[in-house]
Amino acid sequence: MHKVIFDTDPGIDDAMALLFLERHPEIDLLGITTVFGNASIETTTRNALFLKREWNIKAPVAKGGDVTYDAARPMAPWPVVVHGVNGLGDIDMPETIDDVPLDPRPAFQFIIDTVRANPGEVEIVAVGRMTNLALAIAHDPEIIGMVKQVVVMGGSFEKNGNVTPAAEANIHGDPEAADAVFTAPWKVVIVGLDVTIQTVMTRTQMHDLAARGGPHLELLAKISDPYIDFYSQQVEDGMVVHDSCACVYVVAPELFGLRPGSVRVVCGGIADGQTIQKPSQQFFPPSPWDDKPDQQVAMTIEPVKVVDLVAKTLVP
Amino acid sequence: MHKVIFDTDPGIDDAMALLFLERHPEIDLLGITTVFGNASIETTTRNALFLKREWNIKAPVAKGGDVTYDAARPMAPWPVVVHGVNGLGDIDMPETIDDVPLDPRPAFQFIIDTVRANPGEVEIVAVGRMTNLALAIAHDPEIIGMVKQVVVMGGSFEKNGNVTPAAEANIHGDPEAADAVFTAPWKVVIVGLDVTIQTVMTRTQMHDLAARGGPHLELLAKISDPYIDFYSQQVEDGMVVHDSCACVYVVAPELFGLRPGSVRVVCGGIADGQTIQKPSQQFFPPSPWDDKPDQQVAMTIEPVKVVDLVAKTLVP
Repeated sequence: MHKVIFDTDPGIDDAMALLFLERHPEIDLLGITTVFGNASIETTTRNALFLKREWNIKAPVAKGGDVTYDAARPMAPWPVVVHGVNGLGDIDMPETIDDVPLDPRPAFQFIIDTVRANPGEVEIVAVGRMTNLALAIAHDPEIIGMVKQVVVMGGSFEKNGNVTPAAEANIHGDPEAADAVFTAPWKVVIVGLDVTIQTVMTRTQMHDLAARGGPHLELLAKISDPYIDFYSQQVEDGMVVHDSCACVYVVAPELFGLRPGSVRVVCGGIADGQTIQKPSQQFFPPSPWDDKPDQQVAMTIEPVKVVDLVAKTLVP
Repeated sequence: MHKVIFDTDPGIDDAMALLFLERHPEIDLLGITTVFGNASIETTTRNALFLKREWNIKAPVAKGGDVTYDAARPMAPWPVVVHGVNGLGDIDMPETIDDVPLDPRPAFQFIIDTVRANPGEVEIVAVGRMTNLALAIAHDPEIIGMVKQVVVMGGSFEKNGNVTPAAEANIHGDPEAADAVFTAPWKVVIVGLDVTIQTVMTRTQMHDLAARGGPHLELLAKISDPYIDFYSQQVEDGMVVHDSCACVYVVAPELFGLRPGSVRVVCGGIADGQTIQKPSQQFFPPSPWDDKPDQQVAMTIEPVKVVDLVAKTLVP
């Protein structure tokens, strides 16, 4: 069994990824930690509690950061055009979820405690800003050696970003946090936008899952419908399952081709938030990538198999 | 006929590109302007004069910049491991070329005068740092509207750079100059490292050209031999004809697939010198790429046809 902490900012594709983690038979979901990004921390946390209730998820929800790792960074507006004002495609839902308890600890402390309680076993799947993870290792650096792996959806390595021509939203939202996480001596696998963009679940596939999967899948389809409309600019009638890709990596790493090499994040300037890897097989003169641990960046993906695995896991 | 100014820092692949321009029947080489980069300005200018003499080139040589556009930038060591201490593969050659006159004007002034003398007709092929071009448009902005096109070998758009994981050497050598050139309202076509790296002339091809091409080609082969050794880390037994690609574009643009969009150069930080295009078909929130002219970036190349055209031009 894979013991997973899901660090997330639901978020529409986050919702699908959460249901994947909850339903995959080889995954034991230990906790859900929320972070700001697709919406405010109040909204993403409310959404996590809502999904936990609607989908009968046992894993606790711990509320995370609402300030970037470098608190001096200015805040940007939320991407309401992508995820809706309520972060879940503007479906009808309550303002607050009062009947589901929130874990009393901040997300970073929940991560620390859970890793320490399961040394060497926890896999952190992080699909939002890296704020909580950076805080966790800043508060308790010893956990770096106790985490099995960190799997990230974020960055873009050989194509443009989405929030700027240089940067992808999750990393752009907290570049200093991401640089701290990627340069720490633990195993990080990064599945970037240039790879996830290939994974499209069509509207037809989604509606078929809803028809066969009962109310839980009907809810997911309802949440996802406006996201599919949004993505019509970029892909055929369907949604890109960005965040699910990181979850799929945990159970099916053979569907990804990885490249080793240290990874840095640009902090400041026009390329703010850009992710750049120094491939370890390639020679370069001395640079700020030296003496940082090799991480693994996904360069290739088998998109059809990834989407099929997601669908098959959501509705077996 | 294409009226070409060749802005260059010979440089081994620069030497091949120069002979290509000199020999192509549809190209009228109006002048050679030198710039520092592959070696000091003294060395690259001496090399240009040497090649002009050895190859009986009529076009004048004007000596260019030895200081970056932002003079506060620190100087880096010359890439002697690539082009040799003398910039031409360390072949035996004189310290100075006293019997070939140098144009009395600085390179930027030569560019200004030549463009003004041929309004709307001049194509500048720039295969070194952008220093001379930036100085030319800073001194005489009116020439921006009088140049037919600027074709650049430089940058890297969808792969790593070579001098750092982020940046390619020509652009990294003077990022502020490159940003000024790429954001000026003239037509710029950029053929980056990620595209040129595909064009390999094998050692066998080069030796065949030397055998059939007489002393001029024998000299080119002698210059190129250590470069082929250097490139053995990256490609099969052969040399990448980076700079010739920009020259080939002038006469055979159909061998390249271009993408329109404004181009900025990162100035400062770990990505210093990186080139980033905002593809014009893709939507982004407001960014520093806005309100800059669309330039053309080569995304694809037909490498075999490019190398064949180079070979056929060098030895018809």
